[in-house]
Amino acid sequence: MSNSGPSSWIAARSQSFDSSGIRKVFDLAARLSNPVDLSIGQPDFDVPVAVQNACTAAIHEGKNGYSPSQGVGPLREKLKSHVAERYAHEDRDVFVSSGTSGGLVLTMLSLVNPGDEVIIFDPYFVMYPPLVQLVGGTPVLIDTYPDFRIDLAQVEASITDRTKLILFNSPANPTGATATLGEVKGLAELADRHNVALLSDEIYSQFVYDGQLHSPADYNANTIVIDGFSKSHAMTGWRVGWVHGPAEIIQTMIKLQQYSFVCAPQPAQWAGLAALDVDMAGHRADYRTKRDLLVTGLEEDFEFTHPGGAFYLFPKAPYGTGSEFVAKAIEHDLLTIPGGIFSRKDTHFRISYAAPNETIQRGIDILKRLASEG
Amino acid sequence: MSNSGPSSWIAARSQSFDSSGIRKVFDLAARLSNPVDLSIGQPDFDVPVAVQNACTAAIHEGKNGYSPSQGVGPLREKLKSHVAERYAHEDRDVFVSSGTSGGLVLTMLSLVNPGDEVIIFDPYFVMYPPLVQLVGGTPVLIDTYPDFRIDLAQVEASITDRTKLILFNSPANPTGATATLGEVKGLAELADRHNVALLSDEIYSQFVYDGQLHSPADYNANTIVIDGFSKSHAMTGWRVGWVHGPAEIIQTMIKLQQYSFVCAPQPAQWAGLAALDVDMAGHRADYRTKRDLLVTGLEEDFEFTHPGGAFYLFPKAPYGTGSEFVAKAIEHDLLTIPGGIFSRKDTHFRISYAAPNETIQRGIDILKRLASEG
Repeated sequence: MSNSGPSSWIAARSQSFDSSGIRKVFDLAARLSNPVDLSIGQPDFDVPVAVQNACTAAIHEGKNGYSPSQGVGPLREKLKSHVAERYAHEDRDVFVSSGTSGGLVLTMLSLVNPGDEVIIFDPYFVMYPPLVQLVGGTPVLIDTYPDFRIDLAQVEASITDRTKLILFNSPANPTGATATLGEVKGLAELADRHNVALLSDEIYSQFVYDGQLHSPADYNANTIVIDGFSKSHAMTGWRVGWVHGPAEIIQTMIKLQQYSFVCAPQPAQWAGLAALDVDMAGHRADYRTKRDLLVTGLEEDFEFTHPGGAFYLFPKAPYGTGSEFVAKAIEHDLLTIPGGIFSRKDTHFRISYAAPNETIQRGIDILKRLASEG
Repeated sequence: MSNSGPSSWIAARSQSFDSSGIRKVFDLAARLSNPVDLSIGQPDFDVPVAVQNACTAAIHEGKNGYSPSQGVGPLREKLKSHVAERYAHEDRDVFVSSGTSGGLVLTMLSLVNPGDEVIIFDPYFVMYPPLVQLVGGTPVLIDTYPDFRIDLAQVEASITDRTKLILFNSPANPTGATATLGEVKGLAELADRHNVALLSDEIYSQFVYDGQLHSPADYNANTIVIDGFSKSHAMTGWRVGWVHGPAEIIQTMIKLQQYSFVCAPQPAQWAGLAALDVDMAGHRADYRTKRDLLVTGLEEDFEFTHPGGAFYLFPKAPYGTGSEFVAKAIEHDLLTIPGGIFSRKDTHFRISYAAPNETIQRGIDILKRLASEG
């Protein structure tokens, strides 16, 4: 770094962010003209028409200015009543965030002091460790290979007097794993016992295929829950999510929102209000079918944990590292993501089945061929 | 603060954010059923119809997913070519941010280490000091009363070996002041001489009524410039702005955007592309007329600096503190903002003329009556 000019100005925290791994994959992929793309982290269906129409109506009605920091009244009230129906927590408040990532950033800013430790289960959603580092915190990774189950004794052993927060995500990206009732209840009680904040990232709550979603908020009234419309209603580019949790935490996040995100995009908030009335069961059933197609297609040749939700499968590379296998698959026109992007280990790879069935089938064919070549 | 539970989890940085002052004003104002509202920080016209239509077309065309972190290609390319036309800086790059506040947050995260000092001119845009504190920086305020001019010698004297950044805003919120060519050139050269980063917040660039906008980027090729559609095209609730500056800084901000804002709302980015072709000269002329109406109406009874841009006037309270005078005005149905929100001093108040002319005239009448009672 030079001693003067722009290079000398860059803050230390930005150096903990390295996106070179994923960039390398996409550089390789850029050479493909028409890849079999099983790398995408968003639904392959479009925003429901009723939701599109609610957004355009808001625009034409002039609902284009700032909204209150906490979100437009009717959306926030409706979310509040849904939350109150689900949880009998007197102290639970809600606000509208700029997507779930907005909720994650505000959680970090609200809770994590420099030097505080945040427990993250590895493999993890790609944003978690950098988000913690963004605010000067220290990510503490707990290895959950090979079955991506939470070992409560290991969590307990990882807690120190600097532990501020546990990040929990079920259904999980990148593994598709859904936590059992025992894991969820145990983690909720453990967090409470140690006076550690617990964040439950439930962005894939609408993509649970076997049984129902277990939330730690059922067993720990101070759980912070993040959810949103991005995945459920294909609104990833619209940036609307919500956070509910203890009133004092939510109020702190709203205060910080004023000085950062300002508000979620207003027209998209009105669209969110409409989205709450749109039944997505058909899409959920489709995605369950896609999951079964992929699982059935690969189970003979690949080693993986059966995914109960989200739209990902996270198999072990049949040979070589995850990166090496993904690079080889790219040579055969198939695009997936190496597990090292989501983990300290580079042994697995992520397949997204948010794609047409025909694309999934082509992916299965390529993968089976590659496995047999090992 | 209790030793356990949610209260014990809140990070120290959130305590430097106090919005109680403005809340007090709005609590008072909430009692008014139909106030003469001259407090608003956004245009009183709506998003141009062509821009609304571009947004709804994007939505119906399915442009609803994540955009690239740096923004959709055509918008970014068009902004790049505008910037290249204006500045012959080989190293200047551009990206699309989630409003100008998104650009401000990412500037802080990219540049300011804990303990770094950031120079801010007082009165300041309300977000500046908290934004600096958000990342652990120290705001260093330079008093510009009574005429809101920049004293270069004072700036030079404020620079230490911890100074990382100078925040500059012209036309300015809350004063409406536009910096002279001498101030702008002097500040640009001073920053360069001391190897301090300089951010020029040009969100009011389309609201310059006398002469033209002077940008420090004309005199310092490493200036970081923030602008956006929020004020010019009444898109405050759509959250789209842009940042241009030295490539290495812009690339750092794009990298950090991946882990925070993700991307600006995609449909609104396509609307921004259309907005670049919509001439807002008519609205600018209207706002110039509003400025003149307010200035002429109040100049006999109030002490203020003639505002050359934005849509604010920042007079001295004719008696009492700024807060006391604003509270008294609220008793007479007029809503403005006390200067203490934007300053360490509580001597002035901010009038926004982003309002119908009739409302401005009613405000003038109330203010003149109040001044005569002093």
